[in-house]
Amino acid sequence: MARPLIALLTDFGIRDHYAGTMKGVVLGICPDATLVDISHDIPAHDVLTGALELAAAYRYFPVATVFLAVVDPGVGSSRRGIAADIGEYRLVAPDNGLLSAVFEERPPKRVVELTDRRYARPTISRTFEGRDRFAPAAAWLAKGVALTALGRPAAETLRLQIPRARVEEGVIVGDVLRVDRFGNLVTNIGRDLLDTLPTPAEIEVDGRHIPRVVATYADVDPGALCARVGSSEHLEIAVSGGNAEEALGIGRGAVVRVRRAA
Amino acid sequence: MARPLIALLTDFGIRDHYAGTMKGVVLGICPDATLVDISHDIPAHDVLTGALELAAAYRYFPVATVFLAVVDPGVGSSRRGIAADIGEYRLVAPDNGLLSAVFEERPPKRVVELTDRRYARPTISRTFEGRDRFAPAAAWLAKGVALTALGRPAAETLRLQIPRARVEEGVIVGDVLRVDRFGNLVTNIGRDLLDTLPTPAEIEVDGRHIPRVVATYADVDPGALCARVGSSEHLEIAVSGGNAEEALGIGRGAVVRVRRAA
Amino acid sequence: MARPLIALLTDFGIRDHYAGTMKGVVLGICPDATLVDISHDIPAHDVLTGALELAAAYRYFPVATVFLAVVDPGVGSSRRGIAADIGEYRLVAPDNGLLSAVFEERPPKRVVELTDRRYARPTISRTFEGRDRFAPAAAWLAKGVALTALGRPAAETLRLQIPRARVEEGVIVGDVLRVDRFGNLVTNIGRDLLDTLPTPAEIEVDGRHIPRVVATYADVDPGALCARVGSSEHLEIAVSGGNAEEALGIGRGAVVRVRRAA
Repeated sequence: MARPLIALLTDFGIRDHYAGTMKGVVLGICPDATLVDISHDIPAHDVLTGALELAAAYRYFPVATVFLAVVDPGVGSSRRGIAADIGEYRLVAPDNGLLSAVFEERPPKRVVELTDRRYARPTISRTFEGRDRFAPAAAWLAKGVALTALGRPAAETLRLQIPRARVEEGVIVGDVLRVDRFGNLVTNIGRDLLDTLPTPAEIEVDGRHIPRVVATYADVDPGALCARVGSSEHLEIAVSGGNAEEALGIGRGAVVRVRRAA
Repeated sequence: MARPLIALLTDFGIRDHYAGTMKGVVLGICPDATLVDISHDIPAHDVLTGALELAAAYRYFPVATVFLAVVDPGVGSSRRGIAADIGEYRLVAPDNGLLSAVFEERPPKRVVELTDRRYARPTISRTFEGRDRFAPAAAWLAKGVALTALGRPAAETLRLQIPRARVEEGVIVGDVLRVDRFGNLVTNIGRDLLDTLPTPAEIEVDGRHIPRVVATYADVDPGALCARVGSSEHLEIAVSGGNAEEALGIGRGAVVRVRRAA
Repeated sequence: MARPLIALLTDFGIRDHYAGTMKGVVLGICPDATLVDISHDIPAHDVLTGALELAAAYRYFPVATVFLAVVDPGVGSSRRGIAADIGEYRLVAPDNGLLSAVFEERPPKRVVELTDRRYARPTISRTFEGRDRFAPAAAWLAKGVALTALGRPAAETLRLQIPRARVEEGVIVGDVLRVDRFGNLVTNIGRDLLDTLPTPAEIEVDGRHIPRVVATYADVDPGALCARVGSSEHLEIAVSGGNAEEALGIGRGAVVRVRRAA
């Protein structure tokens, strides 16, 4: 039988011991677990970025993976902790919208509130529920405890407003949602929407024009600005061999327009 | 039987291959080991920070975990390598005080010097004993070799001076010992000491007054400066949803005073 | 039987989900694999640095380790993906020179091009072959698939020009090839070459003179500039307890001269 797999995503950074401590707690409960980091470098308190990164990654993990996601500016408040079953996967997180983008793609079959104290550490810090509540819950799930054992059903969960691409007078208008380490500007304009536009298409971002959507970097000269559908099936603005964020001086929130080329 | 667990803490950073190379060495000796990173981003040569991070983390790991800690500005010198047994755990490190904070809480039952060359790599680099001496020692312990086999008893070990909170004329005086990635200022004022003071308490840090110790961020407005007992049971200065280090412009070494509110 | 080991080296960084997503893909194919990060923080698109880090690390891993290396500025182009057998190890990478430094030490016994689509993901992104082509190939190798099953033989592979130390009129002339997180300047002057020079030797780097090669930091005063043979058996310029890159204001590409002391 395959070993249980827990994938972690947090904003704890890698300088402090926090992520490691969570893993110690997990392995104390479920020693056979394989642990994989998705990222611990989500910007501090940035639930939206955490939600988007999680949604970009989860489908590439094996069926039955448990996701332990903690970006938790409301730690210690009355916001709830939740565990969700989306069919192939289960997820544990604060109920602050961190699972929103996953839920948009895979509506949860069942969500419970983490109320059963048997599946938490005996003392729950008001500043580190990742260690004391979320890590144990994920570990118990991985060990075989049923989702419904973790607590009472959670009727509603908090959903983030994730900016969506829209069509205005024949022009696709979208937003840069995240910028990756290569400086690629990842938008919310999906391939499906892009395909509704007659080709060739022309892109405008922050007053800069990009003459066409290419298939790959190799279709433009090194250093050239280009637009292409990235690995998450969304339009990205990039510089071949370079950094679009630096080249354009723009980042998250920039508006991107795609129209039929004149 | 559970797989042996080795938890690593170093100042090797994550850009270079050093931490990965140590893991390769460990797995060559003990292929079944599960490896967990506590941190590799301890500031270069900063033994005190390494000691404090290790002490904040170790107790959350399962019994029998072996800790492999390398912050080693004296690498290649005559400073010794040691392995220690503190009952529930064993630790391997240079004898430079890196284990001091753990030893304050758990006096070692036995400490040996890493003198037996059978449990080191055949050639020991004068600049990377983490790879050639400490990693093998931790791996052999995880594999089942007795601590006493690693070398001769080490009578004394080097202990760091870790600044302690003190009471001066009814005022608790402590220090900011570390700043985490959220900008929280973590002090050496423990909850026990804090509880000796009649409430409500008033905090002063670098000329700034904080009117009271709160239980959680949720008790103050977003952006407000606050003081609370953090996840390691010590007083922390924080900004709700923000960054106290940036807001106050202070960091490690700042003096914190707690007195009975007037 | 030992679990298969896959060691990863990329320029994906740790902020984004990319490295984690690759691991999800690997574990979906080979759930028993142990995954070890060598580094994900190779500078973006810097194939040479990736090649050097990989070459510094690989020999410390257990026999049969599979290396999954992705620094891939030509992703989506016609550059090939390859898998190589160097006897004790197998490696998977883009054919862009990333394996050059390893191949210099261990000429490959066999190299194949990753042409068999059965061992890739069904859809291969033009911007993330690490996920869709390289990760599956490494996972299948780890799971027991023969190298030759992955594709047709690759006659030639692309080799980088790695700057070599040379002897000019009795003076060893080398280059700083990389700078580590401690600010150590690692050169391409190997111990063997150094040993050909009558001692004591005198070093010059960027107009600064270093009077001798020492065995270890402990042989110089704290803060002193020194030269010593580092953990990869090459000459390094360092500052005891400090940072030579910052102290000298020089970095990669600086020329280093070693001559017999006058």
